[in-house]
Amino acid sequence: MIMEMEKPYVIGIDMGGTNTVFGIVDARGNVIAKGAIKTDNPDIDSYISDLKAELDKQIEVVGGIEKIKGIGAGCPNGNFYTGNIEFAPNLPWKGVVPFAQLLQDTFGVPAAITNDANAAAVGEMTYGVARGMKNFIMITLGTGVGSGIVIDGKIVYGHDGFAGELGHVRVVRNNGRVCGCGREGCLETYTSATGVARTAREILEMCDTPSALRSIELKSITSKDVYDAAMEGDDLAKEIFEYTGKVLGEALADFIAFSAPEAIVLFGGLAKSGDLILKPVVENMEKNLLSIWKGKVKVLFSALKEADAAVLGASALAWEL
Amino acid sequence: MIMEMEKPYVIGIDMGGTNTVFGIVDARGNVIAKGAIKTDNPDIDSYISDLKAELDKQIEVVGGIEKIKGIGAGCPNGNFYTGNIEFAPNLPWKGVVPFAQLLQDTFGVPAAITNDANAAAVGEMTYGVARGMKNFIMITLGTGVGSGIVIDGKIVYGHDGFAGELGHVRVVRNNGRVCGCGREGCLETYTSATGVARTAREILEMCDTPSALRSIELKSITSKDVYDAAMEGDDLAKEIFEYTGKVLGEALADFIAFSAPEAIVLFGGLAKSGDLILKPVVENMEKNLLSIWKGKVKVLFSALKEADAAVLGASALAWEL
Repeated sequence: MIMEMEKPYVIGIDMGGTNTVFGIVDARGNVIAKGAIKTDNPDIDSYISDLKAELDKQIEVVGGIEKIKGIGAGCPNGNFYTGNIEFAPNLPWKGVVPFAQLLQDTFGVPAAITNDANAAAVGEMTYGVARGMKNFIMITLGTGVGSGIVIDGKIVYGHDGFAGELGHVRVVRNNGRVCGCGREGCLETYTSATGVARTAREILEMCDTPSALRSIELKSITSKDVYDAAMEGDDLAKEIFEYTGKVLGEALADFIAFSAPEAIVLFGGLAKSGDLILKPVVENMEKNLLSIWKGKVKVLFSALKEADAAVLGASALAWEL
Repeated sequence: MIMEMEKPYVIGIDMGGTNTVFGIVDARGNVIAKGAIKTDNPDIDSYISDLKAELDKQIEVVGGIEKIKGIGAGCPNGNFYTGNIEFAPNLPWKGVVPFAQLLQDTFGVPAAITNDANAAAVGEMTYGVARGMKNFIMITLGTGVGSGIVIDGKIVYGHDGFAGELGHVRVVRNNGRVCGCGREGCLETYTSATGVARTAREILEMCDTPSALRSIELKSITSKDVYDAAMEGDDLAKEIFEYTGKVLGEALADFIAFSAPEAIVLFGGLAKSGDLILKPVVENMEKNLLSIWKGKVKVLFSALKEADAAVLGASALAWEL
């Protein structure tokens, strides 16, 4: 217990394609200090120097590196097993980057990395709505769709460290939407924020139903526009959420057949749409579940403040180091 | 080590709807003794008495109950967590049967139960082709389609003990085949032995292509007939296997996105069709995999003798008691 008290903080790093946000977190999930640097730096060493310069100021405020138990980072294509970022298409560094090792060498404390959806799941389990749960599936509904699967209290990394790509399960086998992964019909193309905008464009083109969305240029419609219109009672916009929820609910029923979780936790931009998305998701999930699971699997929204969630999730990795 | 030697055997019980097969197994997976009784006995106590009478003879041969480490049973709707058989539609006993407890009380050694597909996966991991693997998925292709999922060296039971129902993942969402579970489009309706026979009937009715299968009455065609015809070079029969392999291969690509296994192990009647099924499965799985997994996931046939596999699998549960 005294040892624990001596190192009461962890560092969380959330690396996105544009910005890297980081912070110092205590055991209760309070973000004590927070900062950001640009990710878009072609020289990894100079990126790490920038990160160290900024983080050192925060570390000093909490009493020095002796107070830090470790560093956790959520990175695109981050591999928990190897500690490497491997061939991330949206980062400036090509090939394999030994990011956990770089952090460890630079700061002198243990470091671990994973992808952002797994980090979110760890965060939810440590500080959020999944506290105490041993089996749940986190679905992140952002620009893409990610997932973090928890079984027996542990993130599923699989044989190679890359398990849990539920955004790329095929939900439409014929004439499915083209996905960024190069395949067609992936869940992500229907239930991400961009998927909702795609649905809006398709429906607006296919029918003549009046809608507030017709006042927006077709190619610039966003999921936020659809949300705003639906909240004002626009029927077509509500139909778009119904459709999104149907696709997601049907997919969740299949995921439940895999790992029989206690709950599904929804996270990210779309998860803020409340009942607009929750109602059709639950309705279609229930309709498609095997009878043994009907009425038994909770669908919950993340309980973490969105601005802090990614850093909290990443930081939570470090408690286990 | 001396303790181990003192109890060198386990008992495996494979409960089917009609027969219950059982045997005594050593640590190398040799089935020392084997027997069977009818499952179809409406009185559970009399069923247990029959089982004890038969097993006691075998137990005596190996040196008495002191030599038995425990009992493992694979049962329809067997729940590992509770030890109960819960509402099994194809068994004579209704409601909840505390089967592990009954075994424990009757034989005086620890007992555990699970369903047959999970038992097969444990067997494969203990004695078969998955020895040494920490992450794999067992797919049983019999009258139905079952699955046993292994992550980090352990069977996935989920929150309620019923995880791993991959036969009931929906592979066709519109106009899918009606499944025994009451839903439509489940994997099981396409890739089980009965699914292959259904495909045969559908294709034969839909086209005029000549085929050896046309000499058999449509409603009595079995997967064995299709296999025999395909082995004799019948093109239509080969097409039926191509289609079955396509549906299974596409589904496997989705399963891999969940748990990133090292291998998929195929088991059961259809798995004996060799390249007829393996080629289209692998081809369609590869075609549908996310690029990070292409060429990396093995598809293997079970290495356990089919006559012994179910008993071996069930028995393997008992080593962990």
